[in-house]
Amino acid sequence: MTLVYSSAAVRSTHVKALFFDVFGTLVDWRTGVARESESILQPMGHSVDPLGFADAWRGQYQRAMEEIRSGRSPYVKLDLVHRRMLKSILPRFGLEQLSDDTLDRLTHSWHRLDAWRDVVPGLERLRRRFLIAPVSNGNIGLMADLARRNGIHWDAILGADLARDFKPKPAVYLSAADAFNLSPGDCMMCAAHGSDLRAAAAIGMKTAFVPRPEEGPGFGESQAAVPVDVVAQSIEDLAVKLET
Amino acid sequence: MTLVYSSAAVRSTHVKALFFDVFGTLVDWRTGVARESESILQPMGHSVDPLGFADAWRGQYQRAMEEIRSGRSPYVKLDLVHRRMLKSILPRFGLEQLSDDTLDRLTHSWHRLDAWRDVVPGLERLRRRFLIAPVSNGNIGLMADLARRNGIHWDAILGADLARDFKPKPAVYLSAADAFNLSPGDCMMCAAHGSDLRAAAAIGMKTAFVPRPEEGPGFGESQAAVPVDVVAQSIEDLAVKLET
Repeated sequence: MTLVYSSAAVRSTHVKALFFDVFGTLVDWRTGVARESESILQPMGHSVDPLGFADAWRGQYQRAMEEIRSGRSPYVKLDLVHRRMLKSILPRFGLEQLSDDTLDRLTHSWHRLDAWRDVVPGLERLRRRFLIAPVSNGNIGLMADLARRNGIHWDAILGADLARDFKPKPAVYLSAADAFNLSPGDCMMCAAHGSDLRAAAAIGMKTAFVPRPEEGPGFGESQAAVPVDVVAQSIEDLAVKLET
Repeated sequence: MTLVYSSAAVRSTHVKALFFDVFGTLVDWRTGVARESESILQPMGHSVDPLGFADAWRGQYQRAMEEIRSGRSPYVKLDLVHRRMLKSILPRFGLEQLSDDTLDRLTHSWHRLDAWRDVVPGLERLRRRFLIAPVSNGNIGLMADLARRNGIHWDAILGADLARDFKPKPAVYLSAADAFNLSPGDCMMCAAHGSDLRAAAAIGMKTAFVPRPEEGPGFGESQAAVPVDVVAQSIEDLAVKLET
């Protein structure tokens, strides 16, 4: 079910900061990880299906997150989680013998992803009116590298490293609002995933859904699975909707 | 004593990130707090010496920091520390009757400070070659507002809020390097205060001293009180020295 309020209603809520999910919502992790992994593995004589490799890698995500969110394992930054996830899929691709250095280089693939085309112009426009920050499970260095690569000017990098926990745990959203001295109701979480928006709404944030069916099979959501305040077709469209 | 290595020696250490102290080093807190406080107090009929008020306020800083650094009080963001410091000096200025709202507005003065003239062009130039971030005792929202006001594009806001402790405690410097996946030796702390640089060097960071005698009587240091890797006369001069 999608519940769309008028943009006038959203404006009346005086949103001051926009928080963004990053993987899937702003950057195309799937073709990026496929491309980067292939560029590392192919010259070494390893032939893998690049998209299948990317999907298998990201497929470990929820289980790896839950290990930490549950408290069974202590918080570590996403770069280290990505490396653990990578190790767990190597046997499936006959890559058990990769060196530590190669694992590090592969893990760094996640720092070299491209933003969807609407993201940079959309964020530039939104930044004129709102504080903007990623509230991602990605660590600060990873977010900083993605911002550099794509030319994004964040006001701050918030999210998992600040809260030392992972979305959708409430602490991640609450720490982001608090970092800007705002109450959750002054903030809007913008994401392509219903689970993210449901958790943000539960602690009182406004929410915007941006569909990214192109994120990949089994990952992309075409429609908001939860009630949201705004549905925008892109980050540029979000800028239009929040200005009118 | 000032120990200045050649810039070639600094280059050979492969510094990848520059970390900046903010109050005094990048922004003129003294005349800014004086100006902003006067603009709030004078229309209310309160006549105080603005610079004396700013000096008295900042004069509470080390004692307030030590209360938290020592572990006697839990970590709170600098905005809250500034408010506590403010309350402690009110009797001295006959201002005990100020409302909570006025105290909040006065505390927000610290968000409306101007950078020294060399800062913005210097940081823009340094950013072409290095990751740059504030490593300040200021909280994230405070740093974000100062960056907005002055047009500074940080790669991330590191420092006290991330470490949940205050400089010169080692955790603040270590958490900053770790946020960028760097070892301390890949990072350079840039500051106008010897105590800051001493602590950064103690955990293995490179150091740059920028004199700011104009910070104010009792605050500004004309010479590095500790050995440092680079002495620069301004942030623009630092850019020149780190490029040659």
